[in-house]
Amino acid sequence: VSTLADVGAIRVVGTGLLGTSVALGLRATGARVLLADPSPGALSLAAAIGAGEVAGDPEADLVLVAVPPAVTAQVVLAELAARPGATVTDVASVKAGVVAAVRAGGGDLSRFVPGHPMAGRERSGPVAARGDLFEGRPWVLCPTPQTTPDRVAAVRRLALALGAVPVEMAAERHDEAVAVVSHLPQIAASLVAARLRGVDDDTVALAGGGLRDVTRIAASDPQLWQQILAANAAVLLPHLRGLQADLDRVVSAAADLAGGGAAGAAPLRRLIEAGNAGQQRIPGKHGGTPTRYEVLSVVIPDEPGALARLFSEVGGAGVNVEELALEHAPGRAVGLLALSVLPGARPALEGVLRASGWHFSG
Amino acid sequence: VSTLADVGAIRVVGTGLLGTSVALGLRATGARVLLADPSPGALSLAAAIGAGEVAGDPEADLVLVAVPPAVTAQVVLAELAARPGATVTDVASVKAGVVAAVRAGGGDLSRFVPGHPMAGRERSGPVAARGDLFEGRPWVLCPTPQTTPDRVAAVRRLALALGAVPVEMAAERHDEAVAVVSHLPQIAASLVAARLRGVDDDTVALAGGGLRDVTRIAASDPQLWQQILAANAAVLLPHLRGLQADLDRVVSAAADLAGGGAAGAAPLRRLIEAGNAGQQRIPGKHGGTPTRYEVLSVVIPDEPGALARLFSEVGGAGVNVEELALEHAPGRAVGLLALSVLPGARPALEGVLRASGWHFSG
Repeated sequence: VSTLADVGAIRVVGTGLLGTSVALGLRATGARVLLADPSPGALSLAAAIGAGEVAGDPEADLVLVAVPPAVTAQVVLAELAARPGATVTDVASVKAGVVAAVRAGGGDLSRFVPGHPMAGRERSGPVAARGDLFEGRPWVLCPTPQTTPDRVAAVRRLALALGAVPVEMAAERHDEAVAVVSHLPQIAASLVAARLRGVDDDTVALAGGGLRDVTRIAASDPQLWQQILAANAAVLLPHLRGLQADLDRVVSAAADLAGGGAAGAAPLRRLIEAGNAGQQRIPGKHGGTPTRYEVLSVVIPDEPGALARLFSEVGGAGVNVEELALEHAPGRAVGLLALSVLPGARPALEGVLRASGWHFSG
Repeated sequence: VSTLADVGAIRVVGTGLLGTSVALGLRATGARVLLADPSPGALSLAAAIGAGEVAGDPEADLVLVAVPPAVTAQVVLAELAARPGATVTDVASVKAGVVAAVRAGGGDLSRFVPGHPMAGRERSGPVAARGDLFEGRPWVLCPTPQTTPDRVAAVRRLALALGAVPVEMAAERHDEAVAVVSHLPQIAASLVAARLRGVDDDTVALAGGGLRDVTRIAASDPQLWQQILAANAAVLLPHLRGLQADLDRVVSAAADLAGGGAAGAAPLRRLIEAGNAGQQRIPGKHGGTPTRYEVLSVVIPDEPGALARLFSEVGGAGVNVEELALEHAPGRAVGLLALSVLPGARPALEGVLRASGWHFSG
């Protein structure tokens, strides 16, 4: 991991999901992080989970602006003006508009490095933040023609320190790319999820992994996504029209089949084949997600104190649990608790579970 | 787990993903499984991985037909005719057409239990099979008015033995439900994935978890899905037209914004909000009651015994935890534990957390 030894304090403006995740990741490298947010609640929560210091209006060499897209340019302009020596970068999901607005506002473009870390979660706010959010993820930098190379290098080091992979491209090219790999999937997920509103409980009870995966990002923040989609509407439009034309063909095919025809089968097959071909273009998971943990599944009887007993026994044996997840399947008297431990801790965990008579597998 | 002790040999016709998964799961309960498949390669592969015996044309008390949807009715008719005492069930994803065809073919409906285990993978064939594929998943049974209760009970025991949750509903109702929870998501995933065919490598290199999740099932088998979508075309059509109308509204909104208007922002926001509302209707991972839990996020210091102390305090206060998830983000000195409780238990949980000095939010 690169160090940020040559960088002094880093100011993070905006302690939502992205800002707090950057701050947590930077703190882990030993960097000094100064937090700012107009919301006192978000700010103190971010500080409480160890994301950095709350400082009034400090000096900083590097400023990361992680505020909602619609106000990004305005905050970038303010930071460029308030800190004449600082490098300023941002994380807004659409870049051309931010660059144009900072230019129009007379900002010092030589010190501005427009950026977009390609990472996120469908949950938002500092509580959802994780220092490893950017591990192995692309971090797009869109320097303007005026941005000086040393400023780009400083933000590149920031990205590397967080385990991200810096990628440089023009703002327009970035916006084209995210229209297809991010905005179109968001719209499709929301459209499919929206159709679940009217159905009855027996229907949603049949939901499987396919529906869950397709609609996971439908849980995204409406305020944020209105801003993102609106900012990229012109770039998105031809892609949306392409999707619309493809869907029209599917509807025609289904109408033909529903009317007793046979000509509709082939277009449906071609749709799935086209999806196969497109899906295969997605590269494997980027360097991140190293499988660092061993997972054991423990059967938890649905009785008071069962979890407390388990954790007291596991903790008493000195086993550190890294991650855990409990599922209570309705219609079953037991829950299943997935315990993740470092590989070296597995034998000890198995030993204590066996000694205490827990049923487990994995 | 239920036993199949009262059932003799079980014949599985079709050793693809579903048939082989059923066979593997049944073998694990000690049942005798007799495999059949027109493809000698698939058959011997299924036998080689321990799914059962290859027997010529054996007697069987229970026959599970797991062949492609388009030939399911024909194979069901053949099995009903060849084994006059046997209960016959199938796994085809669309039910009304199969029932109608078996009825039209003069099959003995009293012994036919149309079925659909709501489980699958985007990979196909016996190699992708897993004996635990059905664990906690709904297994829909659509008995006809002629099907006798003892035949339904036999297939219900089969589903229970595989860890599935039997659900009875009329074939027409099932087909309506899968149109929304399965077929529409498949079409959306394929449509989004299909748009990746034309883009360059730099664009797909920016793909993130959102795109991967939305398009995962786009890897599905075209031959199989042509049959599924065609078989349910009439039921699917109004849902597709609803999707089409919703997409048309999104395109109009984007066109308005792209042309410099402002009226397009609100419809985009409403789309994401509608998606939020629909996505929340999906029940927890294992299906069942769509109970809404209250979630509190608790900061857990990374020190031995912290979880045991928390659970002992929470349990001691009589608060029942329904679901929980812990994240230990690397680069963070603390973990964050999400505790889900029934809405009525929230005040008690907040009280005990506050009294014991835990930091929490939510």
